[in-house]
Amino acid sequence: MTFYTFTEEKLREFTENVFLKMGCTTADAQLAADVLLRSDLRGIDSHGVARLSGYIRLWEKERINATPVIKVVYETATTATVDGDGGLGLVVAPFAMKIAIEKAKLYGTGWVAVRNSNHFGIAGYHALLAVEQEMIGISMTNASPLVAPTYANERLLGTNPMCYAFPAGKYPPVVVDMATAAAANGKLEIAQRANLPIPEGWAQDKDGNTSTNPHQLKEGGSLLPLGSDKDHGSHKGYGLSATVDILSAVLSGANYGPWVPPFVSFLEPPSDPVGAGIGHFFGAMRVDGFRPAQEFKDHLDNWIERFKQAKTVDPDKQVIIPGEPEYAFEQERRTAGIPLIDAVVHDLNELADKLGISRLN
Amino acid sequence: MTFYTFTEEKLREFTENVFLKMGCTTADAQLAADVLLRSDLRGIDSHGVARLSGYIRLWEKERINATPVIKVVYETATTATVDGDGGLGLVVAPFAMKIAIEKAKLYGTGWVAVRNSNHFGIAGYHALLAVEQEMIGISMTNASPLVAPTYANERLLGTNPMCYAFPAGKYPPVVVDMATAAAANGKLEIAQRANLPIPEGWAQDKDGNTSTNPHQLKEGGSLLPLGSDKDHGSHKGYGLSATVDILSAVLSGANYGPWVPPFVSFLEPPSDPVGAGIGHFFGAMRVDGFRPAQEFKDHLDNWIERFKQAKTVDPDKQVIIPGEPEYAFEQERRTAGIPLIDAVVHDLNELADKLGISRLN
Repeated sequence: MTFYTFTEEKLREFTENVFLKMGCTTADAQLAADVLLRSDLRGIDSHGVARLSGYIRLWEKERINATPVIKVVYETATTATVDGDGGLGLVVAPFAMKIAIEKAKLYGTGWVAVRNSNHFGIAGYHALLAVEQEMIGISMTNASPLVAPTYANERLLGTNPMCYAFPAGKYPPVVVDMATAAAANGKLEIAQRANLPIPEGWAQDKDGNTSTNPHQLKEGGSLLPLGSDKDHGSHKGYGLSATVDILSAVLSGANYGPWVPPFVSFLEPPSDPVGAGIGHFFGAMRVDGFRPAQEFKDHLDNWIERFKQAKTVDPDKQVIIPGEPEYAFEQERRTAGIPLIDAVVHDLNELADKLGISRLN
Repeated sequence: MTFYTFTEEKLREFTENVFLKMGCTTADAQLAADVLLRSDLRGIDSHGVARLSGYIRLWEKERINATPVIKVVYETATTATVDGDGGLGLVVAPFAMKIAIEKAKLYGTGWVAVRNSNHFGIAGYHALLAVEQEMIGISMTNASPLVAPTYANERLLGTNPMCYAFPAGKYPPVVVDMATAAAANGKLEIAQRANLPIPEGWAQDKDGNTSTNPHQLKEGGSLLPLGSDKDHGSHKGYGLSATVDILSAVLSGANYGPWVPPFVSFLEPPSDPVGAGIGHFFGAMRVDGFRPAQEFKDHLDNWIERFKQAKTVDPDKQVIIPGEPEYAFEQERRTAGIPLIDAVVHDLNELADKLGISRLN
């Protein structure tokens, strides 16, 4: 595998140009690019610019609205439901999170459910918007059905990620940002490309047998919830994924469960939708709504230090604080640049040719 | 194993008498008994009256205050921090949840962090208080350190449960109520009593090797987070447990991580506390803060129906809706009574003799 490394600025400019060609306003193109770039910077390569041509393909099929009129359709002092008008989740989600933050400024907390949206990038981006305001940020989204609930032999849930982000004092924020499946689909895709077996407990084949063949997912198989099997708590992963689905979609009026429209353009959305687009859910809570912010930060620093000092099984490994590896990536890549594998560069150059913008290299 | 079956009324009266002997007010004794009985009714036998003598032993050691002055110590429109004054979590938690509900009535949502509390029973009890008001209920608590984070060979987190409860229409509420460890400690205790091996992935021994010996936990071993190992996402279970710990304790001013005081009276609390007692976190969100309540309930009914109709691996098994088995237990046990194993009955009768109240049988 060959890597090419690009500066953040170069990739940002390229990405903005793609979104401009899609017809986004300059502000929206900049925002959408910022979400994708943050993912690449944080080392979550599966959710960054590698997905650009996926967004474009959905737009070509008129399943993404490049000029949405995003609206609050329902509201109380601390709650709101936002209709994303079929826009890019990369734009709709920050819009919604900002409403949650504004409500939290006034009332202590703010909570926003979103319908009629699309893939929103990494959950962590949105939760971290709240952290910048000394708030706890919460974000989640439902996603294309790939996961079979415990006992099921059918894909009914997405990898439905949830994220909780907390501001620390002298350390980077604690960011728990996780898919509720045993393994993210991106990990399976890596194994598919390399034709390597996957661990038992990630996926089952079309007959519901646990399988180490990464290609089974394309042949009618399913991903498994966090916990992998009943004995190891897969009903908990299923319950978490269900929670994300209900908060993101049953509460907002989006599609849920098997009705969630697929991210990939070659699969058609169900013909009998139960709501609009995909759904998200966001929360912002002022830390100083509970105790003085500095006290919270001091104690979270203490929490972090204690966990980092933990006795480990392998003396060469430290306990990892959630969000720590992504922060380290971000520090490094902001200066050293962002490496992309040749297949992604090739794909982006093809996209550039199609859209009539400058190639990456 | 012999079971004796008691009516709900009989067990309730007995439990109230125990709490009255502890010095609780009549209202508090009734409330604490209600929380424990609900657990037995819902089939969560590990968290019901079987724990009564544990609460008494902590009270005897002056680690539970039977007559707490529970106070709101910090507040905004939608947030509060409650100091439980060392009271029974069974009493402090409903107090806090009711504040969250009152705030939600006024502002759409309410969020309460709690410090200086004790074991609060089942998380589901408290979340369901919100569901009765057509709200989404959220409850969580930290707990005695038993779980090693990914890579650690040290117990730094509790089995830290989180619960999300949602009101449905014609079906019982959806209640996701789960420990964030691969297996609850209660399951290990059952294996210990029966001297049976446990599945790999539940626990590790004192050297950090995965172990099928259920007694390892008492010999310096640890429980493992949901996900069991890194390959299967144990960092996610660790991240969830960390989230519960931070929301329950770093936010409220309770003890966190390895400083959480143990539930068992024979282990002393750490001599260098970082906060007060154990911590909880509660939330209540009005469904109609997001969309008309009937619409939400209709769609949640549809969600439930679709998941129950899922194609299953074993045609004799149905996909289980979170909370469904507990609801079925509750319907059955309200009329058929609550079965207790002989060891628990023996323990409760000894407790009765010690306190000078009527035996169970």
